Amino acid sequence: MIKAGVVGVTGYAGQEMVEILLHNPDVEITSLSSRVEKETPVSDMFPRLAKRVTIPCCPINPEKIASETDVIFLSLPHTVSMEYVPAFLAKGKRVIDLSADYRIPVDVYEKWYGFKHSDPNNIRKAVYGLPEMNRQSIKKASLVANPGCYPTSVILGLMPIAKNIISAGLDVVVDSKSGATGAGRKAALELSFSEVGENFKCYKANAHQHMPEMEHVLSGFSGSEFKLNFAPHLLPMRRGILSTIYVRHKGLPGAEEIHGLYQKLYAGEPFVRVKPLGELPQVKDVAGTNFCDIGLTVSAGMLIVVSVIDNLLKGASGQAMQNMNIMYGIDERRGLE
Amino acid sequence: MIKAGVVGVTGYAGQEMVEILLHNPDVEITSLSSRVEKETPVSDMFPRLAKRVTIPCCPINPEKIASETDVIFLSLPHTVSMEYVPAFLAKGKRVIDLSADYRIPVDVYEKWYGFKHSDPNNIRKAVYGLPEMNRQSIKKASLVANPGCYPTSVILGLMPIAKNIISAGLDVVVDSKSGATGAGRKAALELSFSEVGENFKCYKANAHQHMPEMEHVLSGFSGSEFKLNFAPHLLPMRRGILSTIYVRHKGLPGAEEIHGLYQKLYAGEPFVRVKPLGELPQVKDVAGTNFCDIGLTVSAGMLIVVSVIDNLLKGASGQAMQNMNIMYGIDERRGLE
Amino acid sequence: MIKAGVVGVTGYAGQEMVEILLHNPDVEITSLSSRVEKETPVSDMFPRLAKRVTIPCCPINPEKIASETDVIFLSLPHTVSMEYVPAFLAKGKRVIDLSADYRIPVDVYEKWYGFKHSDPNNIRKAVYGLPEMNRQSIKKASLVANPGCYPTSVILGLMPIAKNIISAGLDVVVDSKSGATGAGRKAALELSFSEVGENFKCYKANAHQHMPEMEHVLSGFSGSEFKLNFAPHLLPMRRGILSTIYVRHKGLPGAEEIHGLYQKLYAGEPFVRVKPLGELPQVKDVAGTNFCDIGLTVSAGMLIVVSVIDNLLKGASGQAMQNMNIMYGIDERRGLE
Amino acid sequence: MIKAGVVGVTGYAGQEMVEILLHNPDVEITSLSSRVEKETPVSDMFPRLAKRVTIPCCPINPEKIASETDVIFLSLPHTVSMEYVPAFLAKGKRVIDLSADYRIPVDVYEKWYGFKHSDPNNIRKAVYGLPEMNRQSIKKASLVANPGCYPTSVILGLMPIAKNIISAGLDVVVDSKSGATGAGRKAALELSFSEVGENFKCYKANAHQHMPEMEHVLSGFSGSEFKLNFAPHLLPMRRGILSTIYVRHKGLPGAEEIHGLYQKLYAGEPFVRVKPLGELPQVKDVAGTNFCDIGLTVSAGMLIVVSVIDNLLKGASGQAMQNMNIMYGIDERRGLE
Repeated sequence: MIKAGVVGVTGYAGQEMVEILLHNPDVEITSLSSRVEKETPVSDMFPRLAKRVTIPCCPINPEKIASETDVIFLSLPHTVSMEYVPAFLAKGKRVIDLSADYRIPVDVYEKWYGFKHSDPNNIRKAVYGLPEMNRQSIKKASLVANPGCYPTSVILGLMPIAKNIISAGLDVVVDSKSGATGAGRKAALELSFSEVGENFKCYKANAHQHMPEMEHVLSGFSGSEFKLNFAPHLLPMRRGILSTIYVRHKGLPGAEEIHGLYQKLYAGEPFVRVKPLGELPQVKDVAGTNFCDIGLTVSAGMLIVVSVIDNLLKGASGQAMQNMNIMYGIDERRGLE
Repeated sequence: MIKAGVVGVTGYAGQEMVEILLHNPDVEITSLSSRVEKETPVSDMFPRLAKRVTIPCCPINPEKIASETDVIFLSLPHTVSMEYVPAFLAKGKRVIDLSADYRIPVDVYEKWYGFKHSDPNNIRKAVYGLPEMNRQSIKKASLVANPGCYPTSVILGLMPIAKNIISAGLDVVVDSKSGATGAGRKAALELSFSEVGENFKCYKANAHQHMPEMEHVLSGFSGSEFKLNFAPHLLPMRRGILSTIYVRHKGLPGAEEIHGLYQKLYAGEPFVRVKPLGELPQVKDVAGTNFCDIGLTVSAGMLIVVSVIDNLLKGASGQAMQNMNIMYGIDERRGLE
Repeated sequence: MIKAGVVGVTGYAGQEMVEILLHNPDVEITSLSSRVEKETPVSDMFPRLAKRVTIPCCPINPEKIASETDVIFLSLPHTVSMEYVPAFLAKGKRVIDLSADYRIPVDVYEKWYGFKHSDPNNIRKAVYGLPEMNRQSIKKASLVANPGCYPTSVILGLMPIAKNIISAGLDVVVDSKSGATGAGRKAALELSFSEVGENFKCYKANAHQHMPEMEHVLSGFSGSEFKLNFAPHLLPMRRGILSTIYVRHKGLPGAEEIHGLYQKLYAGEPFVRVKPLGELPQVKDVAGTNFCDIGLTVSAGMLIVVSVIDNLLKGASGQAMQNMNIMYGIDERRGLE
Repeated sequence: MIKAGVVGVTGYAGQEMVEILLHNPDVEITSLSSRVEKETPVSDMFPRLAKRVTIPCCPINPEKIASETDVIFLSLPHTVSMEYVPAFLAKGKRVIDLSADYRIPVDVYEKWYGFKHSDPNNIRKAVYGLPEMNRQSIKKASLVANPGCYPTSVILGLMPIAKNIISAGLDVVVDSKSGATGAGRKAALELSFSEVGENFKCYKANAHQHMPEMEHVLSGFSGSEFKLNFAPHLLPMRRGILSTIYVRHKGLPGAEEIHGLYQKLYAGEPFVRVKPLGELPQVKDVAGTNFCDIGLTVSAGMLIVVSVIDNLLKGASGQAMQNMNIMYGIDERRGLE
């Protein structure tokens, strides 16, 4: 029985993490904590967990958390995770960090997040937790940087043809749309129902902090610099991300061959499903699951790839669970079926 | 040309007030103000008003506002309106207050709003601005207390049979459901899209501050004490209120006769529509309009009345416009068609 | 391993039934069928089940289905279930019927559903599948009539005080609100997004076919006739039911005592949670779970009970799973945690 | 007083057309018709029009309609409009057709709509009703082909730089998202609330019939062939279109200069608003209005233009009203403020 702790249970990813851990028969939740003032029954904070979780949510005490757990999930805002990671690693704990703090090189981080990183050494030790790319490294990792939600959908949508794109010198346009839980659980006028409902907007066009994450990871994977354009949008719905990816079909293999690359790369993957050529996935196909569904079509000289995930599962807590399963050598699907 | 000012344009009712005033060809908007720090173009605050409103939004300066206007609409939170009303009245201005500050007797106000009223004398001068009940008094009023959104839907739904209900000594159950704009424009976790979307809840059951308003007004109208039960609910939509009203059909006239009472009372009303007996209205029938649609059915020994309004129009700014038109002796429908 | 079949997988309850069965480690899905013309991969019909379900969806062939299964879930429209139930029972299969066909006496059925019942004898053999009321009978049943969605929320909300209400001769008003999946999966203008979104309506006030089901079951439970008023409403959301129940607090025990009756009756129930007195549940507390959460408050002389469920889980397929677990003597929570 | 008729009032554009005509003080609605079996009160079909429209909805009788009207708005499905247009033109009536039947050359139409055109001659007489492009021709037109909803948002977003794009030989990617009313008012499973709510999808990527319309119109405007890629998406909301347009910023003028081209072209336009450079519009800025708001930003070597409209107003009936006003030489804003 793996003893797991979740730090930061009050956010949407934290809550979802608890739900998933409850589904994993190999795991016992032994510690829940958050930036609360005092120990609080979880069911007071989240009535939906009443009768399901019996341990309380405690203030964050790293010593105590480390003593109670084998593996720790950090569902904290970026810049906060780095305050706790060193202590947990020093105690020999395995850490899966859902924040952005350990995903990208320190200079890129400091540029895009506008914050001095206090723990740059551990960035180098961290493994980027995308199983489809880094499964072998994740197995041996003590610190996993769980990917961002947009990057998960986009990187999985581009991986099979990333090298071809670089060779052909093509532009890539990524137009992503996310449900409102992606913006986190907080009081903010622009996230209120009356502002988001019946509304739709583009924000941070080519200026979102997930863009360098995608470029960094795809560059590392491809062995040369990978550049893309990225415009995220806010959907009037709760969960799900759909990324529409446009690549000019010039210098790329034929449609069937491209489709074959996707099928081949993801053939053994438990959580990636490639649609038949010409069919595109919808958010509802993956909502509430850890799947990433990918479809592609070539027409009018353009390759269009559509990739969908549940932002709180494959885009956050589900992928964290998958990573933990890999780290412990158990079936990747435990808790996620 | 009537010179109108709106104090408190940043809320949903304030914005809607501006939109409606723009539609009224007898009105010129001469003053817009709000609790802002400095003069700001309205289009910076609300891009949808760009090219439509040219005057800026200013900090609230009662002297200046009074000098620029004939009539002032106060779209302020309760407890704030009372800070400004005396000054405007002293200058001889007509005031339509959309807050709760002048709707109910001072003792009831202080009990339910938990706030010491600083201007109790003007409560007595205020006319409750429900045209269908108080048209003649509104004509002569200098201060109109614009009704609450829930009370508008409920009082209009009960007026035609209020006296019958009292005579028969019947219980009344009012189950109301409101869109999220009814909660105001503010940053609050419980109003965020991710909390309100795909959710539904009951709140303040028999403990909402609009309950005494309904009881007070219906009692005044009926000449004896009118009591009801009231449970409001929050809908995952932006606009609209539907109130389902249950009255045991015992000691009341027959269904046809009751229906006739509704038809008779509202026959000449420009903004109340009574459905054929047995047909019930839906929110979409009135969304974006100043109408209150009412339907009723009698079955299994129960009279069920359903009343719908747009909470920002007939439930707030539309009714305020109607009141202004009455005060100025012009067609009630100006700006509202 | 229990071999389970689902007849009628194309509806929302049918799909949900498959999802839940996949979660139950004691069950193997051995048959899926529907009114399709020919054998079809399930993933063609429901891409979200790709890689998760490997058997196809077949046309409904009772002989074949019976030969492949131990227990059969019928997710069919009312009037259709009764065509298949006799054959399955004759083969000694256990049947859980999610339609209304076996819930109420034949005369009540024929009156409210307007359809001549072709299998009245089996109605008498059927057990009404509300575990909190009929657990012992369910254990021994070969045919379980799974309760309606509204009735589940309302009966659980009234059971603890049903006898008190009858003794005191009180009126009961039930105002229920349901998400759109409750109306089924079908092409209908009035169910289209553009009609349901940003809209809210009351329908079939005191004329809905679930009203006699509630009255029949509560009467049987109480030993005397139980009458209530029932007005359902359609919410602009996908899943969930909230019922607000109003009972005059006259002749009933005190608030604390009533609350105690709820706590006592549901103390050992795995899927009913009673909130602290005065706190009310929300739909999101139970969405995606098999729980029924109940809260109550007494004020202004009225007892108000609020009951929430997920209409597709505790209101349909989740409860069916719970019933199957009871029939097989395994942990009721299997597949539902 | 202009006597106006609407043919096809049962769709969303038809209903909206009626609402707008009611707002236009220069217009009297003298004829409403639709494919109904017999004369029907409009308020029976659309309760929201009760007390507002008194003439009935009649079956489509071209003779009668022509005799009652000066101008006719056709809100009919494509392939149906062409059945009626010749008769109305022969009677000397002015016609504004909201369908696609007269927007594009007959060969393009027949290829993309898969239907033999029965009235090709009038296509040549029709003026494409985009006032910002064809105001002078609209003034003199007897037949206006009202633009499609997607094309309106995209063409306005590209017009100021269309020639520059062609000169520079650049790729254009258009990723558009539309509310569900864009799909029309009809019974269809894929348009049901339970399918569209909490879902998002891409459809007809580079295969939508509005793509050739955009290319044809922009080519005509630019004087050389204009090609683009176009992927539409379905939003879980009722109204509004947002188009995100990507053009590589290579061979184009600088950001400020591009912004200047937009400001200049639209300086005198009553219904196009250009945001300050770097600011992007949202759907709520234009919902319920006839405005098209456009914002643009240049970063990471890419020009990104965002264009928003209300699909039923500037994207359909509002633009039709604007066209009628132009045809009659009255203020373009009549009925649209």
